[in-house]
Amino acid sequence: MRHESKILKGNPLGDPHIRDLIVYTPPDYDKKSGNYPTVYCLTGFTGRGKMLLNDNAFSPNLAERMDRLIAAGTIKPMIAVMPDCFTYYGGSQYINSTATGNYEDYLIEEIVSFVNQNFRTLNNRDSRAVMGKSSGGYGSLIMGIRHSNVFGLVCSTAGDAYFEYCYSGDFAKAFRAIKGDAAGFMKRFWAEEKKDKDFHPALNTIGMSACYSPNGADFILPFDLETGEIREDVWKRWLEHDPVRLVEKHVENLKNLRLLFLDAGTRDEYALDIGARVLSKKLCDFDIPHIHEEFDDGHGGISYRYDRSLQLISENL
Amino acid sequence: MRHESKILKGNPLGDPHIRDLIVYTPPDYDKKSGNYPTVYCLTGFTGRGKMLLNDNAFSPNLAERMDRLIAAGTIKPMIAVMPDCFTYYGGSQYINSTATGNYEDYLIEEIVSFVNQNFRTLNNRDSRAVMGKSSGGYGSLIMGIRHSNVFGLVCSTAGDAYFEYCYSGDFAKAFRAIKGDAAGFMKRFWAEEKKDKDFHPALNTIGMSACYSPNGADFILPFDLETGEIREDVWKRWLEHDPVRLVEKHVENLKNLRLLFLDAGTRDEYALDIGARVLSKKLCDFDIPHIHEEFDDGHGGISYRYDRSLQLISENL
Amino acid sequence: MRHESKILKGNPLGDPHIRDLIVYTPPDYDKKSGNYPTVYCLTGFTGRGKMLLNDNAFSPNLAERMDRLIAAGTIKPMIAVMPDCFTYYGGSQYINSTATGNYEDYLIEEIVSFVNQNFRTLNNRDSRAVMGKSSGGYGSLIMGIRHSNVFGLVCSTAGDAYFEYCYSGDFAKAFRAIKGDAAGFMKRFWAEEKKDKDFHPALNTIGMSACYSPNGADFILPFDLETGEIREDVWKRWLEHDPVRLVEKHVENLKNLRLLFLDAGTRDEYALDIGARVLSKKLCDFDIPHIHEEFDDGHGGISYRYDRSLQLISENL
Amino acid sequence: MRHESKILKGNPLGDPHIRDLIVYTPPDYDKKSGNYPTVYCLTGFTGRGKMLLNDNAFSPNLAERMDRLIAAGTIKPMIAVMPDCFTYYGGSQYINSTATGNYEDYLIEEIVSFVNQNFRTLNNRDSRAVMGKSSGGYGSLIMGIRHSNVFGLVCSTAGDAYFEYCYSGDFAKAFRAIKGDAAGFMKRFWAEEKKDKDFHPALNTIGMSACYSPNGADFILPFDLETGEIREDVWKRWLEHDPVRLVEKHVENLKNLRLLFLDAGTRDEYALDIGARVLSKKLCDFDIPHIHEEFDDGHGGISYRYDRSLQLISENL
Repeated sequence: MRHESKILKGNPLGDPHIRDLIVYTPPDYDKKSGNYPTVYCLTGFTGRGKMLLNDNAFSPNLAERMDRLIAAGTIKPMIAVMPDCFTYYGGSQYINSTATGNYEDYLIEEIVSFVNQNFRTLNNRDSRAVMGKSSGGYGSLIMGIRHSNVFGLVCSTAGDAYFEYCYSGDFAKAFRAIKGDAAGFMKRFWAEEKKDKDFHPALNTIGMSACYSPNGADFILPFDLETGEIREDVWKRWLEHDPVRLVEKHVENLKNLRLLFLDAGTRDEYALDIGARVLSKKLCDFDIPHIHEEFDDGHGGISYRYDRSLQLISENL
Repeated sequence: MRHESKILKGNPLGDPHIRDLIVYTPPDYDKKSGNYPTVYCLTGFTGRGKMLLNDNAFSPNLAERMDRLIAAGTIKPMIAVMPDCFTYYGGSQYINSTATGNYEDYLIEEIVSFVNQNFRTLNNRDSRAVMGKSSGGYGSLIMGIRHSNVFGLVCSTAGDAYFEYCYSGDFAKAFRAIKGDAAGFMKRFWAEEKKDKDFHPALNTIGMSACYSPNGADFILPFDLETGEIREDVWKRWLEHDPVRLVEKHVENLKNLRLLFLDAGTRDEYALDIGARVLSKKLCDFDIPHIHEEFDDGHGGISYRYDRSLQLISENL
Repeated sequence: MRHESKILKGNPLGDPHIRDLIVYTPPDYDKKSGNYPTVYCLTGFTGRGKMLLNDNAFSPNLAERMDRLIAAGTIKPMIAVMPDCFTYYGGSQYINSTATGNYEDYLIEEIVSFVNQNFRTLNNRDSRAVMGKSSGGYGSLIMGIRHSNVFGLVCSTAGDAYFEYCYSGDFAKAFRAIKGDAAGFMKRFWAEEKKDKDFHPALNTIGMSACYSPNGADFILPFDLETGEIREDVWKRWLEHDPVRLVEKHVENLKNLRLLFLDAGTRDEYALDIGARVLSKKLCDFDIPHIHEEFDDGHGGISYRYDRSLQLISENL
Repeated sequence: MRHESKILKGNPLGDPHIRDLIVYTPPDYDKKSGNYPTVYCLTGFTGRGKMLLNDNAFSPNLAERMDRLIAAGTIKPMIAVMPDCFTYYGGSQYINSTATGNYEDYLIEEIVSFVNQNFRTLNNRDSRAVMGKSSGGYGSLIMGIRHSNVFGLVCSTAGDAYFEYCYSGDFAKAFRAIKGDAAGFMKRFWAEEKKDKDFHPALNTIGMSACYSPNGADFILPFDLETGEIREDVWKRWLEHDPVRLVEKHVENLKNLRLLFLDAGTRDEYALDIGARVLSKKLCDFDIPHIHEEFDDGHGGISYRYDRSLQLISENL
C-alpha cells in the first residue's frame, strides 16, 4: 500500500515522503471477519520493509515464514507490517532527528493509525508487537522504551546496545574512508552502483551520527577529522541513545510490556551478544521482566531467529 | 504468471511443475499497441526468476534497472522474462538431465511459446535475447550453442566455462563435506534453515553432477568417495558440457548469432575470466564473431554488468 | 650472552631470571678499537630478542639488515641489543608490574649497564637509541617518556597508543574466549603446542591487564566477567599507561630527546596509525619536536620499516 | 657448518654453492663416544635449513623439540640435519633440474657423505631417516622413491602429491599475477622487501615449473600466457613428478623402506589430505607397507606433527 506522510514531507535529505508500506495478511484474512493482532517488523540498517519479502531459495521471506508458522499452528494468525524508514544515510534508527527526519513520530503517529484504518487489526497495545534484527532490534527497543502504550510486546534480535562495543570498532575504518569529508563520501557512495567493498563502517558511522548527533540539518562525527581521536562531547550524545542508558529513565514503560525479549548470537561481529547481556543486567537491576537468550551464530544470516520472536509474541498476546 | 509444465511434470526430484514465471513489461506496454523484443534473463546457481526482483536499496533489481535504462534512452523498450529452473540440487544449468528434469526443453519448448502467447512479443529469433550471470551465463551460452534458431542474441557474464578452473577447485571441499554420502548431505542441507557456512562447494558439485553426470534418476560424483581422486570417466562426461568443448560441434549455430557477448571480472573467484578468455580463443579459432570484455571485479555483486549486456542487446536487435 | 638478573629473580610468574641477551656487533667491531653507538630493539608482544635473528629468505633479520645498511653506508656502524622481556602472559610492555615483574627497572638498571660493561659502547644517552614495533614501540615510547636520561633517541613503529582504539576492539573476543576464568585460559593456552586459532585477543587482553591493572601478583580484567561490560575503574588504570596521556606529565623528558620518531601503517588493524596521529597531536600541543610518518601497510610484515628508524637514528646520533 | 658444493657450482640461477649446513647433535653427543642415527629434515617451499631453528615463544624449534623429546624418552638421541636447498625461485623440490640445479644429487652425493665425515653417524640406510612438511614432505617421498638405499625411513607431512588438487588451484592467480612475463615477475618480486600480498600462487607456480618443466636454463609455465588455458604437454611433464604416479615405477624401492609414514590435515588448503589418501591407495594397490594418518588442521602451523614423525622414526630405527 502507498502511504503519504505529512511528517516526512520536507525532510532535510529530500527522501521520499510517499512510500510503499508492505502489509502481510494471514491466509484466512479474506475468508474470516474478525480482527487480528499485528506485528511490526523493523529492518536493519540499509534495509527497508520490502526487503523482508525478498526471495531466497534457502530461507523463507517474512510472508512465507508466517504462512508456514501459522499453518503449523506455531503462531496465531497475525497481520505483519513492514515499514520503510530508509534514508539517504542508510537508515533512521527509527528515531527523530533534525538531520534525517522524524521517523519515530512517523511510525507511532502515522503508520500505526494508517494500518489500523486500512486493516482489521486488534487495535490495542496488548495485541501489537514490534520486532527486528540489528538496527531493527534497536528500533523495537526504542518502541518499548518510549511507546509501551502503543506496542505491548517487543522483541530485539541482535539489537544495537552498549555502544562502546557495537559502534566504536568501526571508527578507525570510518575515519580512513571518510577522509575528513562525510558529504563527499556520501556523494561518491551514491554515484556508483558498485560500492567500495569497505563502505559499511563509514556509512554506518555517518548514519548513526545523523541519528545520534545531528547538528541542525547536518551532523557531527564522533571523532576528530584530523586525528581520529574520539570527540567526548559527541560520544556522550551518542550514549544518551544507548538502550543500556535509556532503561533507567523509562522503567515504568518497560515494566508495562507484556513481552520483552532479547537475543543475540554468541559470535556476533558487533558484540551485540555482549550488548544484550549488559542490557539484560540493567533490566534485572530495575526488576524489569524480560527473556534473554543466546544462540550460536554471528550477526548475519539469522532470519531464522524470527521464528523464536514470533512464537514468543504469539504466546504472549 | 503461473505456468503449468508438461515437461517438468513427474520430474525425478519431485520439484514443482507449476511455477511462477516473472515477466517484466516496459512502462509504455499498456499504452501502446506494438510488439516488443524480449530478453530472457537466467539466474545463477541457487537462484530463480523472482530473485531478480529482490529489493536492494543500493542496487536496482532487474525491473528497476530496465525502467531506468529505458527512461534514459540507453535501451529500447523490451519485455524481460525471468524463468525459474531451480531444483532440489540448487539448479539445472538449463539443460536436460535424467537426474533433474528436462529444463532445456522446458525453456525452449514451453516457456518461449507461453511468453509469445501471453505477451505482445516480436516473435522471431532476431528479436529474442538471452542473458545471465554465472550458471545463467552458462545457460545463455547453451541457448546460443544449441538453439540459435530461438535466441539470436546471447550474453554471458562470468558464465561457467573451462571446467578445469571453475569447478575442480571445489572438489576437495565437496569431498570433505559430502563424506561419501551425497544423498545424506542433501537431506541435512534441506533439514535446517541455517545452512552450514561451507555448504556451497558441496552443493555446487552435487548440482553439477546431477546435470553433467546423471545416472538414471541418480548421479555420479566426479571423484572417488574414499580418496577424493578424480574419476576420469566422470570428468570426461562433465567436459562434454563445457562451452569451450562445445564450440567446435556447433560452429554454424554460433556463427548465426546476431550478438555473442562474453565478459567476466578479472578477479573472478571461479576464474571465469580465464574461462571467457579460453572460450573467446576457441571462438576466434573458428571465426565466430563475438565481443569479449573484462572488468575489474570478482564473481559476486556484479549485477551492474547487466547494463552492458542490455545495451549491447538493444544495439544489436 | 647470558645475563643473570637480580630484579627478575623471584618474579611472580616464575619466569626465568637468567636469560640470553642477544647483541649484534658491527662487521668492523673486532678489527677496530673505538666505541660504538648502541640501539636497543624491543620486540612486539609475544616476541623476545632472539626472534629478531630469525631467518626468512625474503626479509633480512636485524643482524643482516644492519650489515646491509652499514655496508651501503646508509647507517653508521652501531651495536644492536635485543633484550628478552617475555613473560608467561606473552610480554611485559617493558614496564614494572607486581603481576609480571619489574621489566622497566630490568632494562634501565641492569641491561644497559651490562651491555656497557661487556661491549665497547659510547656510554652516554646521546649515543643510545631505542626502537621497536607494536608493543616494542610502546616500550620505546616509555623509555623516552620516563628515561630520556638513558635513551636520547626513540623510534616507535606502530607503537601502542590511544588505547580506545588499539585495545578495546579485542575485548569482546577476549571476553568470550576467557569465559570468566583467565587463569584457566592461560593453563589451556600453555598446555598444547597447537594454539586455538583465536587466542590472540584473549592473550593480549590478559597480558595488558597484567601490565596495566595488576592486583598484587594477580590482575583485573577490564570488563565484567559475566556481561563483558567495561569496568570503568580498571579502564581508567589502563589509560594512565597510554602514551597519549603520559605526554603531559613528562614534557621536559620528551623535549630533551635528540630524536622522537613515530610511524604507523595506514591500514593498521589496531588503528595504531590513529594512535600515532593522536600522539603526534599531543606532542604538538606541548611543542615537543618529533617526526611523524605514515606508510601504506597494515600491522604485520613491516620489519622493513626498521630501515627508516635506523637511518633516522644514525642521522641524529 | 659451511659446505662447498661442486654440484651446485655454476648453477643456472647464480645461487650460492657455498651454504651453511645446520646440524643438531643430541645433548649427550659430546659426552659419549658412540655413533648416532640421523634424521634429515627438509623444509617446505620458501624455506631453508636454518629456519628450522627460528625462535618462537609458543612452539619449539627443531633443536628444542628434539631436546625435549629425547629428555622425555620419547625418542632416542639422534643427529638432525637441516639442509639448504633454497633457490632464486623459492625452492628446488629436492630434485635435479636444468633450470635450478641438481639438488637431488647435492643431497644424496654431497650432503649425506659430508655429514657422515663430520659427525659420528650410524652410516647406513637403516639408521638414516628423512622427514619434512609440504615441499619437504615431497622431497622426503622422492628420497624414499628413488633413494631407499640411502634413506631407510621416510616421513611426509602434507607432502605435495596428487598434483590435480595441490597445484592447479594456484594457476588462475598465478596467471593473473605473472601477466605473461615470469622473469619480470621474479625481478619485481626480489626488488622490494615488502612483497605483494598475493605473491605466493605465482611464486609457487614458477618454482614448480622450474623443477617440473624446465627448458634448458629456463622453464615453461603450465598454462598459456594469453588465455590461462592449461598446456597439456607441460602438465603431463609435471604429472611425471607426482608421487602418486611415481609409485608404480619404484615399487621395490618403496617396499624396502623400514618406515613410510604419510600424514596430512583434514583441512589442508592445498588438499594434501586427499593427496595422501590417493597416495596411500596407490601404495596399497602395490602392497607397499606404510602408515597413513590424518589430523584435524590446515596446512600451516603444524610443526607439532614433527613429534609424530620423530617418534615413528625412533621406533623403527
